[in-house]
Amino acid sequence: MEETLTLDILQTSIAETAHSLDIVWVLIATALVMFMQPGFAMAEVGFTRSKNTANILMKNLVDFAVGSITFFLIGYALMFGTDVGGLIGKLPFMEDVRPDIDLSFLMFQTVFAATAATIVSGAVAERTEFKAYILFSIVTTAIVYPISGHWIWGGGWLSELGFHDFAGSTVVHSVGAWMGLVGAAIIGPRIGKYNGKVNAIPGHNLTFAALGVFILWFGWFGFNAGSQLAANGTANTAAISHIFLTTNLSAAAGTLSALFISWMRYKRPTLSLSLNGSLAGLVAITAGCDIVSPTGAIIIGLLAGAALVFGVEFIDKVLRIDDPVGAVSVHGINGALGTILVGFFAKEGGVFYGGGFSLLGIQALGVVAVAAWALGTAFIIFKLLKITVGLRVSARIEEEGLDIYEHGEQAYL
Amino acid sequence: MEETLTLDILQTSIAETAHSLDIVWVLIATALVMFMQPGFAMAEVGFTRSKNTANILMKNLVDFAVGSITFFLIGYALMFGTDVGGLIGKLPFMEDVRPDIDLSFLMFQTVFAATAATIVSGAVAERTEFKAYILFSIVTTAIVYPISGHWIWGGGWLSELGFHDFAGSTVVHSVGAWMGLVGAAIIGPRIGKYNGKVNAIPGHNLTFAALGVFILWFGWFGFNAGSQLAANGTANTAAISHIFLTTNLSAAAGTLSALFISWMRYKRPTLSLSLNGSLAGLVAITAGCDIVSPTGAIIIGLLAGAALVFGVEFIDKVLRIDDPVGAVSVHGINGALGTILVGFFAKEGGVFYGGGFSLLGIQALGVVAVAAWALGTAFIIFKLLKITVGLRVSARIEEEGLDIYEHGEQAYL
Amino acid sequence: MEETLTLDILQTSIAETAHSLDIVWVLIATALVMFMQPGFAMAEVGFTRSKNTANILMKNLVDFAVGSITFFLIGYALMFGTDVGGLIGKLPFMEDVRPDIDLSFLMFQTVFAATAATIVSGAVAERTEFKAYILFSIVTTAIVYPISGHWIWGGGWLSELGFHDFAGSTVVHSVGAWMGLVGAAIIGPRIGKYNGKVNAIPGHNLTFAALGVFILWFGWFGFNAGSQLAANGTANTAAISHIFLTTNLSAAAGTLSALFISWMRYKRPTLSLSLNGSLAGLVAITAGCDIVSPTGAIIIGLLAGAALVFGVEFIDKVLRIDDPVGAVSVHGINGALGTILVGFFAKEGGVFYGGGFSLLGIQALGVVAVAAWALGTAFIIFKLLKITVGLRVSARIEEEGLDIYEHGEQAYL
Repeated sequence: MEETLTLDILQTSIAETAHSLDIVWVLIATALVMFMQPGFAMAEVGFTRSKNTANILMKNLVDFAVGSITFFLIGYALMFGTDVGGLIGKLPFMEDVRPDIDLSFLMFQTVFAATAATIVSGAVAERTEFKAYILFSIVTTAIVYPISGHWIWGGGWLSELGFHDFAGSTVVHSVGAWMGLVGAAIIGPRIGKYNGKVNAIPGHNLTFAALGVFILWFGWFGFNAGSQLAANGTANTAAISHIFLTTNLSAAAGTLSALFISWMRYKRPTLSLSLNGSLAGLVAITAGCDIVSPTGAIIIGLLAGAALVFGVEFIDKVLRIDDPVGAVSVHGINGALGTILVGFFAKEGGVFYGGGFSLLGIQALGVVAVAAWALGTAFIIFKLLKITVGLRVSARIEEEGLDIYEHGEQAYL
Repeated sequence: MEETLTLDILQTSIAETAHSLDIVWVLIATALVMFMQPGFAMAEVGFTRSKNTANILMKNLVDFAVGSITFFLIGYALMFGTDVGGLIGKLPFMEDVRPDIDLSFLMFQTVFAATAATIVSGAVAERTEFKAYILFSIVTTAIVYPISGHWIWGGGWLSELGFHDFAGSTVVHSVGAWMGLVGAAIIGPRIGKYNGKVNAIPGHNLTFAALGVFILWFGWFGFNAGSQLAANGTANTAAISHIFLTTNLSAAAGTLSALFISWMRYKRPTLSLSLNGSLAGLVAITAGCDIVSPTGAIIIGLLAGAALVFGVEFIDKVLRIDDPVGAVSVHGINGALGTILVGFFAKEGGVFYGGGFSLLGIQALGVVAVAAWALGTAFIIFKLLKITVGLRVSARIEEEGLDIYEHGEQAYL
Repeated sequence: MEETLTLDILQTSIAETAHSLDIVWVLIATALVMFMQPGFAMAEVGFTRSKNTANILMKNLVDFAVGSITFFLIGYALMFGTDVGGLIGKLPFMEDVRPDIDLSFLMFQTVFAATAATIVSGAVAERTEFKAYILFSIVTTAIVYPISGHWIWGGGWLSELGFHDFAGSTVVHSVGAWMGLVGAAIIGPRIGKYNGKVNAIPGHNLTFAALGVFILWFGWFGFNAGSQLAANGTANTAAISHIFLTTNLSAAAGTLSALFISWMRYKRPTLSLSLNGSLAGLVAITAGCDIVSPTGAIIIGLLAGAALVFGVEFIDKVLRIDDPVGAVSVHGINGALGTILVGFFAKEGGVFYGGGFSLLGIQALGVVAVAAWALGTAFIIFKLLKITVGLRVSARIEEEGLDIYEHGEQAYL
């Protein structure tokens, strides 16, 4: 009798420590993902012109601040509240949320929502009205991102179908990128970008760009391995170790792939494309980092680097949409590619492992559905912003730089 | 009998793992807080002029190096040794310290002490003699900081009274800021700062400034949640998750508050004030991050952003004390404000929760007592330095830059 | 009977959680060590000229990408496969590797291998052909580093002798540095470095250099404390806490030592040498961070700072080998020094603790053997590269900058 009592106490005690380790894991991952914010900021600053630097930093700072509050107040409940018809979660906030993970899970999801918003800022850089961008950030983190997020991670219809997007190639990256694509198209190209021919507008500081990418690579270990949401027990430690490996291999392969393809194609090994190749590899592995093999991860990275190089060319030269930092190729094309490649490379259910085409079909369906959602809502939001507060700064402000006119500051003296 | 033995072994084993998780938590937090050093360095560099950059980096590097050694040799024992009359801890080193946390706790406290010292460097930037600054760092980390720290965290008289400063709004931030205020006043303003009118002297690199603030925000998760000193068990995981949330919400609210207030007041949304608003929100929540609600955290952040904007104006235009990076407003005014707001927002004992005015009174007393201590000792130290090694570089050195004359180097070529 | 069954289950459950904590520790340390890559990149960029910045960033990015893949495919098995004659590990990959740590251990070792490769890039900066550097990285991370690594960490002959290099002063840092020394000597000095007299070629951005060093200091907590490979239990937590302390104290002492020695010697306290002093302290403590006392760590740091200052002078003025960032002094001289000082300061077996000269002899032997291996293989590799792809860019490219000619990009606009 007494022994049984003690056994119960011990069992509770072990379970508590095990659960504590899970929470610690999620919180550390949260901090790492939050740190991706300066990663994005530095990359974006580096790839754009010095006259717009304060504006870009400001947008990156503000979308994280805005997202932290709106996702807490509204977005989280829409995404993770009790499912309503497979489409949205039920408000109000915190009523029906997963009580076993609670605030650490909320924090983890908050930094993810902010990541999606930040991706947009790169695509619309150097010519967008600051006020419009703030309003855009609010709507995105409060409503747009949480709803498609609910479909996949909140128990909605795509999760019911078995759509697999482990850490958000589609949920986070492609949503941000497709919204950015629409924004860039509606706002129009920067002055001087397409005047008869296609002009490159190089960034002003590749050291910042490289620092940003390295920070993102570092933070991505939190992004992907943190998405396991647990670290206790053999299955979880095997999973997070595996995710570290596949994430790193794909990033490395993406770097080398973009490097060598661009070297052959443009005769020079450029840093800009290699850096974006790293990010492409990271984005592409995010969906399947848990269920593809290390070799699969290398192949996914190689494909991602190629998709990056040709994607940048396609968007710039064929679509003629001005995406200053290549956000759409990095996060959109590779977000979609990585999600679809899960259908081929998943060790269970993938085409290459004899799993047939069922998973592949679902992956493709999810990619298309989320793209339609993001493109459609972004179209409405940007059009509304255009006719209300206005989307684009005046030509004079654009030419002299947004920093002085919009913010009354110069980034560099 | 055998079962009992096994049960004992199991119990020990569980307790050991649980304790190990606590230590891991404290050590990871230590690394994050250490990483705040480049955060401070980048912010300070960015907000000052390029000709003094090497000097500023040097001071940030050296105060961390000095603090790491002096706090180990002297400061830690003064702060955490057996209490003597409520005023100081008993030397010698490591005799009576908490044996249950030991070296991980020592390390955690070391990086805190270094943070306090670093704050001062910002307030006295661009005109202070390097030798004087080194001596100042030694005395601060060895003696001044540990003594007031002992009052609150080492079992001294303020902790006896129930003063609540969870992670150091007062212990760390306001101590650094008040010392910086005295230093800035005694050393005097930079040449050209107040010649009849008040001139702004803008910094030279807002990208560095923004990077610094993002790094600080990241490190602050370690600063605040690490101060729980434990992560095992339901109470601890609930606490650290809660602290992540309140810390992030207050920082976000501080950012937006400073942004919008300065926008209305000065007609432009400036990056500099928004970045300092983030820091203001972080400093203000630090005292009560464990015991205020998420909504309380948002309100504290909003108030902090306002206090920052008006505080900078007050110190610059009314007091006419030249604090190049706004350190006093960020860390002093908001350190005090945040500590006092605990008296209002604490879910147990706060005025707004029906707790009456007792806690508020103690918080105010602590703020005043620590301010008096920091202001008084700083006055003595800076006056002594002035009449011995000298506090201020010559006008020629100041005008041409401290980098070349004091350090024989230029930061940028 | 039933109780026994439950006891077994409990015991398994505790063991699993304990082991999970170890894995979490190793993975977090892995992320921190990976983050040292931008630390190296920023330091190296800062200490060199702006016209070669993209090239330096590219090399740092590519050697990490290359190393991640080659070490996974080949290097890891050579280093940790079943020992063959004390000299190498048995291929193929992953057959006989430690099954208890597996992928997290692989990841941890991967980021170490990449660190060794990165160190070389600093010594050969500003004049090396990019193609040659890529080939060099492949061979280093796939073969050279793993073989000497096997001798010490993979069960080879030096580990049999009792050689102690806890986290890699010799295994990682000195291997990289000696290879860099040979590379710098064979490639020859930069144009204008030694024309009759010895000219200093200052770097272009000390803020980046300082940021890099702070990042490295931060990442080094993962490098050293992660090398414990475990965090569960009293012995492990005591070890990792101790390692945090000794690592930090040595870095601090190295900083101050280099600062004051260079101040006395060159009349100015320079930031460059102080920063390299921090790194010297970190490199030197790496071998013995687990078994020297805190006081020992301070002394080791003080000696490291001195060795750095005189080492830089010796290599530059006596050997006349052009090492643009001081990599050989930081990682080679101090890697060797730190490893040998273990023979004096080890609390068990060290000369100063009455352990006699046996450990010291083994430490010296290991330092010499690894140096011979690294110097010899580097000589062969660089000579082969010289007569095949070519090692050095043309004088015109070197003078106008590698960025434009080799990469078709400028780092700064």
